[in-house]
Amino acid sequence: MTVEEMIRTHPRPTDLDRDALVHCVDECADCAATCTSCADACLGEQDVQDLVRCIRRCSDCADACTATGRIVVRLTEPDVGVLRAAVQACAAACHACGEECERHAGHHEHCRVCAEACARCEQACNDLVAVLR
Amino acid sequence: MTVEEMIRTHPRPTDLDRDALVHCVDECADCAATCTSCADACLGEQDVQDLVRCIRRCSDCADACTATGRIVVRLTEPDVGVLRAAVQACAAACHACGEECERHAGHHEHCRVCAEACARCEQACNDLVAVLR
Amino acid sequence: MTVEEMIRTHPRPTDLDRDALVHCVDECADCAATCTSCADACLGEQDVQDLVRCIRRCSDCADACTATGRIVVRLTEPDVGVLRAAVQACAAACHACGEECERHAGHHEHCRVCAEACARCEQACNDLVAVLR
Amino acid sequence: MTVEEMIRTHPRPTDLDRDALVHCVDECADCAATCTSCADACLGEQDVQDLVRCIRRCSDCADACTATGRIVVRLTEPDVGVLRAAVQACAAACHACGEECERHAGHHEHCRVCAEACARCEQACNDLVAVLR
Repeated sequence: MTVEEMIRTHPRPTDLDRDALVHCVDECADCAATCTSCADACLGEQDVQDLVRCIRRCSDCADACTATGRIVVRLTEPDVGVLRAAVQACAAACHACGEECERHAGHHEHCRVCAEACARCEQACNDLVAVLR
Repeated sequence: MTVEEMIRTHPRPTDLDRDALVHCVDECADCAATCTSCADACLGEQDVQDLVRCIRRCSDCADACTATGRIVVRLTEPDVGVLRAAVQACAAACHACGEECERHAGHHEHCRVCAEACARCEQACNDLVAVLR
Repeated sequence: MTVEEMIRTHPRPTDLDRDALVHCVDECADCAATCTSCADACLGEQDVQDLVRCIRRCSDCADACTATGRIVVRLTEPDVGVLRAAVQACAAACHACGEECERHAGHHEHCRVCAEACARCEQACNDLVAVLR
Repeated sequence: MTVEEMIRTHPRPTDLDRDALVHCVDECADCAATCTSCADACLGEQDVQDLVRCIRRCSDCADACTATGRIVVRLTEPDVGVLRAAVQACAAACHACGEECERHAGHHEHCRVCAEACARCEQACNDLVAVLR
């Protein structure tokens, strides 16, 4: 909600599709928090040994989402090449993390929730890349 | 929504008030994105020279909120001293940023929206500190 | 080296002790990378179950150091209250992480190296707080 | 120095060229701090209006370098696709920032220093991508 209002009151008009942009920023923020939480939840599980790859994927994904959300929300003097590369890197991190979390979704609810957040964020990233000129 | 679900499905029970915790994480995420956007919107204004302090406050607040949201969302093996210091630093950054944005709220809508996000996040941080043992 | 040069060529003079400031920024950058690496190294150990608290401390410390390094390196329109709270939060995170890593320093070299980086960063933070007015 | 020692004492062997990896992590840390400082120094200049694009490029580059340094330093259960996309996004951000800082290098020393840090980090990223399998 707040991000939508910020983009609407920004002094510099953007050529980009505003809905795609706001959606990507929102999903990055949600996915960053969710992945940070999932890495921590996995760390707290008794079978942590089986969740090592999941913790790694979640940690990378949280970092990619944090950086990408910051870059995407900026509208002043954009560089489309930087934007595209950041959003693509985020989509790649979300894909890898979602795939791994999906494997544990049956026995860990937090992995199921995280896999869904990753899938939404990956989609939002891909949708934004599709409208980048 | 997602953070609440993540906290609820976490394997390690927390002594902390869950509502205060979830609320703080959510506000940190919202405030980080809003402050990053406000710094960028100020940078895009014609009177950027008058918004230098505002950009500084927003940049600091975004960084404090990002780190604090990550630290607060983790529930495994918490250290209450680290948690308290991080949340207090976040509250200080929100207070300083909200105060400065408030001064520009009359002529820049994004500063008004940002001042409100900072006030909400500062309150959420103070509410969490109040229940830390 | 680079940070020292950046501070020296900055347009706004700072009242703060430059050596203390540069030292704190450098140690934050080093400690952030070291703690990120130590969390990952612990995750890769066969006795990961015994390193859960260490991974948590390292993750928090990396986040605190990243945010604090960014806030401290900025010299334009500083707010001493925000600066002090951020540096104190960083010192707290370094102290807790260093203490935990120290416990594993005998059997994991990366924990020994990390404990030393945390001690240096904590000292640099405390030295900077001491000269803050 | 510390990163090199961390990588050397890590329990999981890496297929990657260690020198390229350590170098990339070190340059990401240096470039992140330098770009954060350059954005702030530009903000403190009297001709800030002429440095708006430079502040934007530096802010994006600092975020990309921070995330990429964290992802690259992790050796446990790597995903080469995530790694490659992150390093490429970092190289793109460094290239765009270095190019813009170079334009101001004649009248602002901090932009000259920052342009050099960006060039080194871009090179380190490209060198690492070249050895990724």
